[in-house]
Amino acid sequence: MKILILNGPNLNLLGTREKTIYGAESFDQYFEELMLRFPDFTLEYFQSNIEGEIINKIHEVRSSFDGIVLNAAAYTHTSVAIRDAISAVDIPIIEVHISNVHKRESFRHTSMITASCVGVIAGFGLDSYRLGVEALSKIIGEN
Amino acid sequence: MKILILNGPNLNLLGTREKTIYGAESFDQYFEELMLRFPDFTLEYFQSNIEGEIINKIHEVRSSFDGIVLNAAAYTHTSVAIRDAISAVDIPIIEVHISNVHKRESFRHTSMITASCVGVIAGFGLDSYRLGVEALSKIIGEN
Amino acid sequence: MKILILNGPNLNLLGTREKTIYGAESFDQYFEELMLRFPDFTLEYFQSNIEGEIINKIHEVRSSFDGIVLNAAAYTHTSVAIRDAISAVDIPIIEVHISNVHKRESFRHTSMITASCVGVIAGFGLDSYRLGVEALSKIIGEN
Amino acid sequence: MKILILNGPNLNLLGTREKTIYGAESFDQYFEELMLRFPDFTLEYFQSNIEGEIINKIHEVRSSFDGIVLNAAAYTHTSVAIRDAISAVDIPIIEVHISNVHKRESFRHTSMITASCVGVIAGFGLDSYRLGVEALSKIIGEN
Amino acid sequence: MKILILNGPNLNLLGTREKTIYGAESFDQYFEELMLRFPDFTLEYFQSNIEGEIINKIHEVRSSFDGIVLNAAAYTHTSVAIRDAISAVDIPIIEVHISNVHKRESFRHTSMITASCVGVIAGFGLDSYRLGVEALSKIIGEN
Amino acid sequence: MKILILNGPNLNLLGTREKTIYGAESFDQYFEELMLRFPDFTLEYFQSNIEGEIINKIHEVRSSFDGIVLNAAAYTHTSVAIRDAISAVDIPIIEVHISNVHKRESFRHTSMITASCVGVIAGFGLDSYRLGVEALSKIIGEN
Amino acid sequence: MKILILNGPNLNLLGTREKTIYGAESFDQYFEELMLRFPDFTLEYFQSNIEGEIINKIHEVRSSFDGIVLNAAAYTHTSVAIRDAISAVDIPIIEVHISNVHKRESFRHTSMITASCVGVIAGFGLDSYRLGVEALSKIIGEN
Amino acid sequence: MKILILNGPNLNLLGTREKTIYGAESFDQYFEELMLRFPDFTLEYFQSNIEGEIINKIHEVRSSFDGIVLNAAAYTHTSVAIRDAISAVDIPIIEVHISNVHKRESFRHTSMITASCVGVIAGFGLDSYRLGVEALSKIIGEN
Amino acid sequence: MKILILNGPNLNLLGTREKTIYGAESFDQYFEELMLRFPDFTLEYFQSNIEGEIINKIHEVRSSFDGIVLNAAAYTHTSVAIRDAISAVDIPIIEVHISNVHKRESFRHTSMITASCVGVIAGFGLDSYRLGVEALSKIIGEN
Amino acid sequence: MKILILNGPNLNLLGTREKTIYGAESFDQYFEELMLRFPDFTLEYFQSNIEGEIINKIHEVRSSFDGIVLNAAAYTHTSVAIRDAISAVDIPIIEVHISNVHKRESFRHTSMITASCVGVIAGFGLDSYRLGVEALSKIIGEN
Amino acid sequence: MKILILNGPNLNLLGTREKTIYGAESFDQYFEELMLRFPDFTLEYFQSNIEGEIINKIHEVRSSFDGIVLNAAAYTHTSVAIRDAISAVDIPIIEVHISNVHKRESFRHTSMITASCVGVIAGFGLDSYRLGVEALSKIIGEN
Amino acid sequence: MKILILNGPNLNLLGTREKTIYGAESFDQYFEELMLRFPDFTLEYFQSNIEGEIINKIHEVRSSFDGIVLNAAAYTHTSVAIRDAISAVDIPIIEVHISNVHKRESFRHTSMITASCVGVIAGFGLDSYRLGVEALSKIIGEN
Repeated sequence: MKILILNGPNLNLLGTREKTIYGAESFDQYFEELMLRFPDFTLEYFQSNIEGEIINKIHEVRSSFDGIVLNAAAYTHTSVAIRDAISAVDIPIIEVHISNVHKRESFRHTSMITASCVGVIAGFGLDSYRLGVEALSKIIGEN
Repeated sequence: MKILILNGPNLNLLGTREKTIYGAESFDQYFEELMLRFPDFTLEYFQSNIEGEIINKIHEVRSSFDGIVLNAAAYTHTSVAIRDAISAVDIPIIEVHISNVHKRESFRHTSMITASCVGVIAGFGLDSYRLGVEALSKIIGEN
Repeated sequence: MKILILNGPNLNLLGTREKTIYGAESFDQYFEELMLRFPDFTLEYFQSNIEGEIINKIHEVRSSFDGIVLNAAAYTHTSVAIRDAISAVDIPIIEVHISNVHKRESFRHTSMITASCVGVIAGFGLDSYRLGVEALSKIIGEN
Repeated sequence: MKILILNGPNLNLLGTREKTIYGAESFDQYFEELMLRFPDFTLEYFQSNIEGEIINKIHEVRSSFDGIVLNAAAYTHTSVAIRDAISAVDIPIIEVHISNVHKRESFRHTSMITASCVGVIAGFGLDSYRLGVEALSKIIGEN
Repeated sequence: MKILILNGPNLNLLGTREKTIYGAESFDQYFEELMLRFPDFTLEYFQSNIEGEIINKIHEVRSSFDGIVLNAAAYTHTSVAIRDAISAVDIPIIEVHISNVHKRESFRHTSMITASCVGVIAGFGLDSYRLGVEALSKIIGEN
Repeated sequence: MKILILNGPNLNLLGTREKTIYGAESFDQYFEELMLRFPDFTLEYFQSNIEGEIINKIHEVRSSFDGIVLNAAAYTHTSVAIRDAISAVDIPIIEVHISNVHKRESFRHTSMITASCVGVIAGFGLDSYRLGVEALSKIIGEN
Repeated sequence: MKILILNGPNLNLLGTREKTIYGAESFDQYFEELMLRFPDFTLEYFQSNIEGEIINKIHEVRSSFDGIVLNAAAYTHTSVAIRDAISAVDIPIIEVHISNVHKRESFRHTSMITASCVGVIAGFGLDSYRLGVEALSKIIGEN
Repeated sequence: MKILILNGPNLNLLGTREKTIYGAESFDQYFEELMLRFPDFTLEYFQSNIEGEIINKIHEVRSSFDGIVLNAAAYTHTSVAIRDAISAVDIPIIEVHISNVHKRESFRHTSMITASCVGVIAGFGLDSYRLGVEALSKIIGEN
Repeated sequence: MKILILNGPNLNLLGTREKTIYGAESFDQYFEELMLRFPDFTLEYFQSNIEGEIINKIHEVRSSFDGIVLNAAAYTHTSVAIRDAISAVDIPIIEVHISNVHKRESFRHTSMITASCVGVIAGFGLDSYRLGVEALSKIIGEN
Repeated sequence: MKILILNGPNLNLLGTREKTIYGAESFDQYFEELMLRFPDFTLEYFQSNIEGEIINKIHEVRSSFDGIVLNAAAYTHTSVAIRDAISAVDIPIIEVHISNVHKRESFRHTSMITASCVGVIAGFGLDSYRLGVEALSKIIGEN
Repeated sequence: MKILILNGPNLNLLGTREKTIYGAESFDQYFEELMLRFPDFTLEYFQSNIEGEIINKIHEVRSSFDGIVLNAAAYTHTSVAIRDAISAVDIPIIEVHISNVHKRESFRHTSMITASCVGVIAGFGLDSYRLGVEALSKIIGEN
Repeated sequence: MKILILNGPNLNLLGTREKTIYGAESFDQYFEELMLRFPDFTLEYFQSNIEGEIINKIHEVRSSFDGIVLNAAAYTHTSVAIRDAISAVDIPIIEVHISNVHKRESFRHTSMITASCVGVIAGFGLDSYRLGVEALSKIIGEN
């Protein structure tokens, strides 16, 4: 089972950026733990600050991977283009967020992409990614 | 570790109601599976169609349980009272939904309660509950 | 043919409450007349001020009755939970109102439940119930 | 007792137009049945696609008829002029709709004319007209 | 100087319709007084309940009259087509209203046509027409 | 003079819940003080988390009490049903709030019930109840 | 007959300010013409840039004058206080505007004061004041 | 192939009306050119200022023509009735506009009819009609 | 204890203005009663129709008085400047209203100043001021 | 005559993506047909998923090409930056869409770019591009 | 070069009011520094809490000063009258704010006056005034 | 002191694009002048049309530069991602605009990024950049 962890803008700064919201661990450290936790899966990680590169990546993996755990970060709230990319591919994509976006500014309460994803997991810190992989493994297993 | 599964209005009809949205399995059947899956936890289940009884239950378990997995169903979108009940107790509460509410009518895209919960998990069918228990066990374990 | 007349909050005060809007006849008196008018039907009457009990009643009669004439009163404008209950059962439900709600405050112009009902009848005083039973008898007769 | 059945735009196509919404029976056929059903009443039928002609008709019958069953169709949602015509005459006018407009596009959830009518009946197919005549006969009988 | 008094829907009922709002005088009576008051002017009067006929009339008089006093009544609030007709002709058109529309329902507070007219006069009963003719005579005199 | 103090959802937790907003005193303690302060009045206290039970209580006391001091808490912002209950009874009802709701989330700035009450007192901590009783005693005394 | 012409903010600059909108004549010049035109009336003129002084003036003349022609200028769109002052006095007050405010920015399309005035005259340049006096003289004459 | 060119309100003034927006050519002149350009097609032209007559025309040609190029002009933004007429007939209808409506007032940015048409062509001056016929010929040819 | 009663626009007309809303007693009369009722307090009274003078007064008393009972009247709904003045001083300020503003026009349902005040008391006629002084004396006593 | 066909995000998947909306033909295939159809024109094709690269391309061709047929896809609804790029260059740009966006989700009914383009063509499948080239050739020919 | 520093409501309290937002320095102290910094300019300072006096001042200096640095404070968000005063004079006016208003309540995100000013400088503490003078000196120098 | 001048989409066309709005000078020319003006500072310049590259640049300079003067151009109004990038770094960032955005289309009145920046300077043509550097030098000097 091959799963892509796909991170959007500013998540490369994780561990250095606004630690009270996002925590002090870098994503690279966390990704190590995640791979250990799912030894039977092939996990890959990609991050970009460029909306169109996230779309490119979704297109690229659409027949070589079994699913995507996607944290589109800021693009979650504005990107019709990523929404369309999700609808355009057949593999299951799960939306995750580190923070509980409903506790933050009101423009973060709206997601352009949830309706195109299988489901959403938000508010559990980095553990949201682990839960995303768990959810995905169940879905892929059932197909 | 003691966890309450708390279900809101109309979820007693699960398995008979709008099966294309909610699936054909009854919650009682599912709850059996869930308990088997978490043999080390004490899971309890409560359902009510009455908003105030859901609040009563949240109050009641606030010092005897370690956390709640809450599917407030229709009350999710309208109940300030349940939101206040969640804020009023100290144990972690996780919001779950069976369906991906963002694929449905627009009045279901708004949640009154997410901002008071730890986080939200939606769209994975009954598996949302399992993921909720997993998320909760991590949070409780860390405290 | 078995039909439930189901009344929501404050309708127990009918005949004593705001008579210029709702008239001076109590619902019990009117229900007598209604039964006389439809001697071939079994009519039953239930009223509650509690949203969840209205839901309970809808669930309860869903296989023992042929239809419901529902005046959800104030819950008409706010209750997603009653809307979901109506969608969750298979028998036809007709929304009725005593007053013409569009002549009153603007928050009464919105109904959360009409879209889940077969249809709506409003503005004819207590006669709205009789018309509701007539409409229902036609629908049930055709199925 | 003299009652006008007044139909607005596109209802002349009934039976040929969007049959899943409006049914396969033409209004002329239905009007025959309706007259048979109320042998003691004088029923007349008028249809126009022109907003101003509907107003003209309302004015014209205002002292020669006892009431109107009005399906203003699309003009329901936009016509202040028809609303004013209804307010300007003294005979009772009842708004009817074939389909349950609340199950359709959101711009059909707003009615400009309900507040000027006695009441509204919607969602019962062509039977809405029969219920309208019944409601009207009660109102006229009471005056 | 040739001026058209152009009245929109339901104004033919003036004197019989909602007298507390519009007064008890018919427009024909008033028009007699108006002609006496302006003996040097040629005044003509036209009324229609049909939006398109009002447009036809505006087109028709656009080179044979010097100005129009227009009470578009209900179409004031909804008609882009009359607005466009006003913009399409070169003679000055003045919007008048009998009642003070801002004391009535909120949908009457919006005018689609004011921005295309020279100006607006509202709230003076039938005297609004006289003031409209006065205003027009000054404008025409100055050109 | 007989006055009911009627508290809505979550107010049973007063003294334990969000103390920075609601203070550390329980309502039972406070109610003792309140009775001492008004020795000539009969004060009774009722609390429920169930919207419909609050309505039931308002109905129940409508001829046996002289007035109600009502803190509908979260239901203040959503309950048309309680608003209707207040309008349906003849005794004066005063809306009180412990916190200044305008300093909190924007959905707490809207009250569904103020327009049906005599008046509103908010922001004085538990002293809001005392002021409510004072206001009520003046109103009842004047009738 | 004693009439006050009452001008709001920035109208003291008339003739120097934005001439394409307001014209090149100063109000003092125009006021001379206006007095000549109505030799039988006592006209007085007051202008202030201070909202509260406009209110003071309305209060002051409420028993010594027969009516007011009011151009509240910018305060038209924002002042509840002037609206209340108009409602608080018994003499008729007419709202006038030099420009057609509906041809300008959208925030100028809303008037807070029209509903408290007898009527409104807008868009006729300084001639709006003359029409205002004419309208007023008719109203006062009829009382 | 038989195609109707159907024009809405004020388009009869084309060539004389607001030339900077609509150009100086009359539609009759243009229609001559259009027929020359499509010698193999039967083109007919109809214009009305009356909403209901546009509907009548759509109904009338619904089995005798192969398609309609419709410029509903001002009714584009307000007419639910024309929208319903388009939905009620089976032949393809294409919406065209002479000007780019998105460069004009904001109320022209909304179209009530696009969703019922095959597609829309706007902003190319009178050439929009030619493009409309081209688009239609392709669609009809493919059926 | 030194308390300022501070009244906003049009309240100088109390007793003469719209008596059905505000009562027939002048504020000067009432202020006499109020001083008698609180013999141990120094009460002062100030009224202005000018927004900025209300601000000046709040600034002026900010170290010489112990609190303010403020009825900002119409400025309640529009004045950010008074809101800022309240926030800028350290003494407690209580918002009062004579009428229940929620029973009146919708623009009176919004208060710009409540969030800066300690609390609000509305709807008790002139008794609102007495309740305001009582509330204030408790707050000042506790500091 | 040199024309650029410029496609936005996800259009590289044409023929594989949501075929019921976009059809089964790939754009490369279609582009071959398009070039055959316009043998006298130089057509070039560029596609990118990156908003800024679309802007770069518009800048790049602004003096070497005669016009652009632009399908900005998802960026149509959100991109002020592409709008500004269109305004910043002098060559004519035509907006095209494959599907009739008004039949889809409401966020697709808004275009940020139409007001900067010459015109818009939408809903004709891939034929929209051919119509775009036709429209462009007329405009370029006329300059 | 003669420049007016014009301050709106509550800025007289600077240095004593909400120091975390506005700093601890009084404006008089700062004005001394400012004059020292621009020895070649004539700077004058005026502050008022009264909207109309700010307008009066703008009018007064319109031919004797070369420009204004205006901090309209709370009136920024509500005053159409100050906006009109700015438009009515010919000298350049620059809007400044001490705090970054976009970090505060949402009603402070809207400015009624920016569109009439040359430009805006906000968020630099008292240094905003210095930057305002610098900007003004460049503009005046260029004219 | 090291400062980055960071320009967003379409600003590479400065001097060629819409000169009435943006002026005729290219940014390269202006940047020469700017460096001459601040001989003690190290100024660098970067421009991109790609949102994500602007984010990349902000990240890149976050420990090597002392501050950023950012003109995000069109992305100002839409980019949550750039807002988050600004919040994610510790150096001060100042928002500048060449034109006064409040004089242009209403969608340019909203900024997604101001709340994350230190402050904003807009409307001074290219001089906005100089003022931005001045503001920054004061802030950096004070830290």
